Amino acid sequence: MYLEQIHEANDIKKLNEQELAGLAEEIRTFLVEKISKTGGHLASNLGVVELTMAMHLSFQLPEDKMIWDVGHQSYTHKILTGRKEGFDDLRKYGGMSGFPKRKESDCDAFDTGHSSTSISAGLGYARGRDILGQDYSVISVIGDGSLTGGMAYEALNNAAEMKTNFIIVLNDNHMSISKNVGGMSSYLGELRTARAYTDLKDTVENVLGSIPFGGEKMVRHIKRTKSSIKQLLVPGMFFEDMGIKYLGPVDGHDLKALCRAFTEAKRVKGPVLVHVLTKKGKGYLPAEENPSRFHGTGPFDIQTGEPIFKSGKDSCTDVFSKVMLDLAKKDDRLVAITAAMEDGTGLAAFHRYYPDRFFDVGIAEGHGVTFAAGLAAAGLHPVFAVYSSFLQRGFDQMIHDVCLQKLPVVFAVDRAGLVGSDGETHQGIFDLSYLSMIPNMTVLSPKNKWELADMVRFAVRLGAPAAVRYPRGSAFDGFREYRAPIEYGKSEPVYEEEDIAIISVGHMFEQAVQVRKRLKEIGYNCTLINARFVKPVDEEMLRKLTVEHRLIVTLEENIRRGGFGEFVIAYLAGLETDAEVLNLALPDDYIEHGSVDLLRSEVMLDIESCVARIITAYIAEESRRD
Amino acid sequence: MYLEQIHEANDIKKLNEQELAGLAEEIRTFLVEKISKTGGHLASNLGVVELTMAMHLSFQLPEDKMIWDVGHQSYTHKILTGRKEGFDDLRKYGGMSGFPKRKESDCDAFDTGHSSTSISAGLGYARGRDILGQDYSVISVIGDGSLTGGMAYEALNNAAEMKTNFIIVLNDNHMSISKNVGGMSSYLGELRTARAYTDLKDTVENVLGSIPFGGEKMVRHIKRTKSSIKQLLVPGMFFEDMGIKYLGPVDGHDLKALCRAFTEAKRVKGPVLVHVLTKKGKGYLPAEENPSRFHGTGPFDIQTGEPIFKSGKDSCTDVFSKVMLDLAKKDDRLVAITAAMEDGTGLAAFHRYYPDRFFDVGIAEGHGVTFAAGLAAAGLHPVFAVYSSFLQRGFDQMIHDVCLQKLPVVFAVDRAGLVGSDGETHQGIFDLSYLSMIPNMTVLSPKNKWELADMVRFAVRLGAPAAVRYPRGSAFDGFREYRAPIEYGKSEPVYEEEDIAIISVGHMFEQAVQVRKRLKEIGYNCTLINARFVKPVDEEMLRKLTVEHRLIVTLEENIRRGGFGEFVIAYLAGLETDAEVLNLALPDDYIEHGSVDLLRSEVMLDIESCVARIITAYIAEESRRD
Repeated sequence: MYLEQIHEANDIKKLNEQELAGLAEEIRTFLVEKISKTGGHLASNLGVVELTMAMHLSFQLPEDKMIWDVGHQSYTHKILTGRKEGFDDLRKYGGMSGFPKRKESDCDAFDTGHSSTSISAGLGYARGRDILGQDYSVISVIGDGSLTGGMAYEALNNAAEMKTNFIIVLNDNHMSISKNVGGMSSYLGELRTARAYTDLKDTVENVLGSIPFGGEKMVRHIKRTKSSIKQLLVPGMFFEDMGIKYLGPVDGHDLKALCRAFTEAKRVKGPVLVHVLTKKGKGYLPAEENPSRFHGTGPFDIQTGEPIFKSGKDSCTDVFSKVMLDLAKKDDRLVAITAAMEDGTGLAAFHRYYPDRFFDVGIAEGHGVTFAAGLAAAGLHPVFAVYSSFLQRGFDQMIHDVCLQKLPVVFAVDRAGLVGSDGETHQGIFDLSYLSMIPNMTVLSPKNKWELADMVRFAVRLGAPAAVRYPRGSAFDGFREYRAPIEYGKSEPVYEEEDIAIISVGHMFEQAVQVRKRLKEIGYNCTLINARFVKPVDEEMLRKLTVEHRLIVTLEENIRRGGFGEFVIAYLAGLETDAEVLNLALPDDYIEHGSVDLLRSEVMLDIESCVARIITAYIAEESRRD
Repeated sequence: MYLEQIHEANDIKKLNEQELAGLAEEIRTFLVEKISKTGGHLASNLGVVELTMAMHLSFQLPEDKMIWDVGHQSYTHKILTGRKEGFDDLRKYGGMSGFPKRKESDCDAFDTGHSSTSISAGLGYARGRDILGQDYSVISVIGDGSLTGGMAYEALNNAAEMKTNFIIVLNDNHMSISKNVGGMSSYLGELRTARAYTDLKDTVENVLGSIPFGGEKMVRHIKRTKSSIKQLLVPGMFFEDMGIKYLGPVDGHDLKALCRAFTEAKRVKGPVLVHVLTKKGKGYLPAEENPSRFHGTGPFDIQTGEPIFKSGKDSCTDVFSKVMLDLAKKDDRLVAITAAMEDGTGLAAFHRYYPDRFFDVGIAEGHGVTFAAGLAAAGLHPVFAVYSSFLQRGFDQMIHDVCLQKLPVVFAVDRAGLVGSDGETHQGIFDLSYLSMIPNMTVLSPKNKWELADMVRFAVRLGAPAAVRYPRGSAFDGFREYRAPIEYGKSEPVYEEEDIAIISVGHMFEQAVQVRKRLKEIGYNCTLINARFVKPVDEEMLRKLTVEHRLIVTLEENIRRGGFGEFVIAYLAGLETDAEVLNLALPDDYIEHGSVDLLRSEVMLDIESCVARIITAYIAEESRRD
C-alpha cells in the first residue's frame, strides 16, 4: 500500500512518519516473499531496510552518490529507485542483477561485488567532485566484515589524509558472511558497548564533581584539554586519531535516529564515519536465527525457512570438505585456511574437528596467501580454500611469496568457471590464465568427484605450489571407473579413436562426453582426453594426438587468452604437424548473471554449439587438405 | 677491527658494550664505502644498524626467524650472518642479492621484496611453530611506510585474533620511500611524541594530586580503572585495543634500550609490537639530509654524495614526467596517482605544479586502482603511474573496478621488462600477460621516447581503460622520424621486406633493429614491425605478413605464457597460412638480479641469441618446405 507509491528515486520523501514505518514493514514482507521464490541475498538486505530508507530520505538521487560495498545489500535501494518489478527476474538471465550496476540505473553510482572497495571508489568520487567544483554528497556503505579487507584500511588511511567531505557508513552487524574475526572486530566490539569509555567518564566526572570546592571547574578544565579528552569521552578514537570524524553508534533500525545522524554527518567538514548497528535478517525469524544460512539462499519455504530444492548430489565443495577431513586424520601437518568463507568453501567440518589447524583470516585474500606461505615455510601443509574470483586479490602474493620460494601451498580454487546468478564479478573465468602464468605453479582440474578428491590428495603430497580448480554446484558422478592414479603432468585418455580429438579441462568433461556422443551419432570418430593438468600440459599426449588426428579441440570454461587452449596451439605450432587446433573457450569479455546452461549457450559453449563448431572446423580442415 | 670478528651468525654476542659501539661505527663506514661503489639501498640500511644488532644480540639464529619487510634494509643482517664479502658483488649477476633470500642463507627466514608481507609471513611461522610444538621466536620488522599497505593491516588484524607469541618491530622513520602519507601516519605521529597523552596524564595527575585530601587516592583509583586508563597513560591504544601489546616508543639508535625492549617483548604472551624510532641515513650526512635520494642509489662520491655515473639521456620516467606536465596544461581533468612512488614514477614535478590534482595513496596499489576508478566515474581523467611488478597487487581491482565498468583509467606501467639489480621480485615480466587477459583493457608499448609521449596522450584521450608499458632506464632516442600518429589497434611497419618478419613489442625495438641489421649482413631479408598495441593485436598486419613471409618472429620482454607471441601464434593458427611463428620471449621462470644485458643473454634474448634462434628456425622451416 505504501510500496505502491514508490515509482522512482526520491518518492519516499513524500511519505510521513507513520507511512514510513509501514513502508519498512512492506519492504521486508516483499523481500522475503520475492527471494523465497527466486533465491538471492536475504539476511543482509533485511538488516539495512531502515538504513537505506534513511539514506534515501536524507540525500538526493541520482545527484548524491551512494556506493554499496559488495553490493548484495542493495535490494532496498533498488526498490526505492523504481526497480521493484525487477525482483521477479532477480539474478536470472536478462533480469535484474543482484548487485548495483551503473547500466541498470543512474542511481547506482558504482558497480560492486567483491569486498572492501566502496571507500576507495567513494573517495575517488569525492575528490573528483572537489576538482570539478561540484557539490554533491558521497556515501559509502561498508560492513564490519568488509572492514577486515586491507583495501578498506588503505582507503580509510587515504581518506583521513585527504580531508574532503565524504560520508562512510559502517554497517555493523557483527558478521561478515560467517562470524567476523580479527582485532578490528574486537575494537568495534568495544565501541559497540562503549562501556569502557562511559565507565571512565563517569569515574572521573563523579570523583571530581563530588569535590566540594573546584571540582566542577576541574571537569571543565579536563574537557578543555580537547584532543586528549576525546579519548575519554568519545568512542571511535582510532578513527578520530586518523583524522576521520566518528558519529555513533546509532541504532540501525531507528529511522529518526538515522536521519538525525545523516543530518549531522552532512554538516561535518572532511571525512566522517557513521557507525550504525544493524541486525542481519531483521524481521524474519529464520534469518535472524541463522543469518549465515540466509546470506545467499536458494528458493525457500517462508513458513519454515527450509530450502525448496535440495540437490541430492554432493557438490564439489562437499567432496573437498570430506577429503580434507580424511587427509587431516593421516597428516597432522595439514592445515586449512579460509578468507571469511568457512561455510562456502566447505571448511566448517574441518574447523569443528581440527580447530587448532583451521584459520579464518578474514576477508583478506592477500594476507591469506602469504600467511599460508609462512605456514609452509614453517613446515606445515597448508591448503587455502578460496573462490576463483576472490583469489584474484592474492595474485601478487602467489607470484611473490609462494611460487618464488616454491613453498608447498595448495590452493583449492572453488567456484571456478561460470558461477551463474551472481554474475560478472563472481564468474571464475580468469584463473586458468592467471595461475598458469606463474612460474613453479602446478594447475590441476578434475573431471568428476573422485578425481577431485584424488587431486587434492596429490596436490598436498606434491611438496610444491599447486592449485586444484573446480566449479560451483553438483560434482559430476559419472565415469567412476576412470580413476587411474594421478601422475605428475599426465593427462588421462578416456576414448581413443582418430580424426577428431577433444581435450577437456576439468568439469567440462561431463559436457565433452555429450559432445562426443553427438559427434559419434552423426558419424565422426572422436578421441576424448581428460587434460587433468593445465600446467604443465601433457606434451607427450599432444605429440601423440597429432599422429592420428586431423582436428584437436580444446574445451575449457575459462577465457581463451592465456588459457589451456592457447598454450596447446602455441605448443603444436612448434611441431611438424598439420593437425588443426580449435579452442573452445570463453570470449574476451565479462559474462552476466543467469543459469550456467543459458550462459554457456550465449557464449557458444553449450553442447549444440560445441558440436556445430567442431563440425565446421573439421569440414574446413578437410577442404584445406583437398 | 670489530667487523673482522664477525664471521657467522651470533658472533656479535662475543663483543662487549664498548666493542659493540665500535662495531656500529664500522658497519656504517663499511656500508657507505661498499654501496658508494656498487650502488644499492643506503639510507634505510644506515637507519637500522643498531636495531639489527640488538635483534642479533637478543635472538638466536637460525633458530629464531627474522623477517624483513621489503627487505632492502637487511644489509646489516647480511653482515652479521657472515656475508660481508658478498658486498663486493652486491646486486651483480651471480653475486649477493640486495634482498633476503632463503637460498643465500638459513638465517634468511623468508624472501621479501614487495611491501607489507612480513607480518603475514611471520604469523604463518608463529602458528606453524605452535602446531609443531616447537619453541622459537618470530620477529617481523616492518616500516611505518609498509604499514600503509592493506595487507599489513589484514595481518595485524589476524595476529590480534590468533594470540600467538609473535614480535612485530615497527621501524618508524616517518618515511616510506618518499614522505609517508595517510591517517595511520598521523596516528603514529601522535604516538611518536606521545605529548597528547602525557599532557592529559599530567593534567589529571597534577590537578588531582594537588588536592590536599584524597587526591592521590583518586589518582590510584583512576589508574585501577584498567582498560580505560590505558588510553590515558599508554600510547598505542589502537594496537592494544586490537589485542596487540604495545611497547615503546624506543630510541632505535640506543642499543641498550633496544635490547631491553626485546627482553621485555620475549616475555609477553601473545602478539607484541615494539615501536622503534629510527633515522633514515643515520651517520652519513648526505643521506640524513636527503634520505629519498639515498633510498636506492647508484655509485656515488662519498665526500660529496654526488652520483658518479650520470646518464645524459632521458629515462622513460623523465619522458613520462614531461608529457604529464604538458597534458595537465591542456586538460584540467587530468589527475595523477602514485602509490608512494612520487619520485620513482616521475610525478614529483606534477605534484609541484598541480598539487590539487596529484594523489599519493600510500603503498596501496589495490586502493589506488579503485580510487582511480572512482575519479574516472566522477568525470576525471586519472593516470596511475606504477611499477609493473607492484601493479600485480591491483590485479583484481583492474578486472573488477576499472575494466568491468570500462572506466577510463590510464595505467602508466613503469619498470616493465627486466629491471636489473633488484632482481626476481622486481622484474616486470608478467604485465603483458596479466593486462592482456582483462576484457576491455587496451595495452600499448612504445618503441622510443617520442612514441612513449604519443602513447600516453593517446591513452588519456581514449576514454577507456588503457595501459602504457615502458622499461626502467634510458629511453631509446633513435628512429625519431618514425612518428606516424597512433591509431587504435594499428601497428607500425618500419622496414618492409619479405621472408622473415620481426614483430617487436615496445622497448625491444632498439634490439630488434640490431638483430635485423645482423640478419641483413649475412644475407637474410627482414621486415620489421613495431607492434605498438599488445591488445588488441593488429590482426590485419598479421594477415598481411603471412603473404610474403615464411617466418614470423615475435620479440617481447615478458614471459611467453599469455604474452604477445602466444596470441600471435593462436591467431595465425586460425588462418590458412604456412608461415611459421617463432616466439622470442622470457622463459617460464623467475629471473635473478644482474645487469639487463647479462640477464638477456642468460635467457637467450640478447642480440646474438636472437639472431641464432631466428636463423635456426628459418632453416628448419626451409627444410620442412622442401
